[in-house]
Amino acid sequence: MSTISEEKPSDIRDGEIAVPLPDRADAAVYFIGRIRTPWKTRQDCPKNARQARETGQVCTLELDPRWVPGLRDIERCSHLVVFYWMDQARRDLAVQVPGHLGKGRGTFALRSPVRPNPIAMGVVRLIKVDGNRIEVAALDCIDGTPLLDIKPYYASTDSIPDAVTGP
Amino acid sequence: MSTISEEKPSDIRDGEIAVPLPDRADAAVYFIGRIRTPWKTRQDCPKNARQARETGQVCTLELDPRWVPGLRDIERCSHLVVFYWMDQARRDLAVQVPGHLGKGRGTFALRSPVRPNPIAMGVVRLIKVDGNRIEVAALDCIDGTPLLDIKPYYASTDSIPDAVTGP
Repeated sequence: MSTISEEKPSDIRDGEIAVPLPDRADAAVYFIGRIRTPWKTRQDCPKNARQARETGQVCTLELDPRWVPGLRDIERCSHLVVFYWMDQARRDLAVQVPGHLGKGRGTFALRSPVRPNPIAMGVVRLIKVDGNRIEVAALDCIDGTPLLDIKPYYASTDSIPDAVTGP
Repeated sequence: MSTISEEKPSDIRDGEIAVPLPDRADAAVYFIGRIRTPWKTRQDCPKNARQARETGQVCTLELDPRWVPGLRDIERCSHLVVFYWMDQARRDLAVQVPGHLGKGRGTFALRSPVRPNPIAMGVVRLIKVDGNRIEVAALDCIDGTPLLDIKPYYASTDSIPDAVTGP
């Protein structure tokens, strides 16, 4: 059997490592809605959550009507955690070379959408709930991105102001 | 076709609302490893992330060996976001009555494992990486829980110290 480096696909950058995905999946997810954003292409998107926030744009979580009862009491939250599915991202890279970095870094040390389970997370401010539409500020994803989950953000467990990342 | 209330299953509490799940799933996830914790049953588990932290216990993320290259540079992160799959949780409740609350609250206003996509999230301190084992403090899940993702925690986007939840 050949090694990973011999099998290297042609569509990855020097220094990146692709690994074979498992033969079968282990569980399934439902898309519970779609995220409406001002960004129609990947090139339009803010590069990350901070840039998204700085745009001052509002994004809208459009929930599948079946799940609307699940929003009861959500207005008590000033902030939410939103999970969404990066359905345009490949899933087989264990090491990636981000353009801004210029060298290889492990997928689990990056917030890249490219990961075995392309579940992105955004912490957003809740603006308004109107039926099945939840206005938030703001997410960095493309218009129409599938929505997976909405959770209350708890400062007591989710906020670590002195968390650091080294060079 | 009968209404939701007429179809109410016998195994839910007064005030809870179950909704029919979609006929088919939209995407699939891979378990990328397992989480080793000191808690062998659901009754043993800390009730939430804060309680887990207060135990002072160490939990271990055991990564499938295929994904180990994905850990490169992860030691630069003081804290990580961990996603895991609550495989013992039902997925059809839109309104739940948590014991401590005694009234119905929407699933998306709760951190309960019961949700359409039972993806839990924990923010943890990184202690040590040794091969495919990542020691962290601490998670609130049962021993053997499937691991879905590991991400760097960024204070700049993930920490909102003044986020609040109302009564």
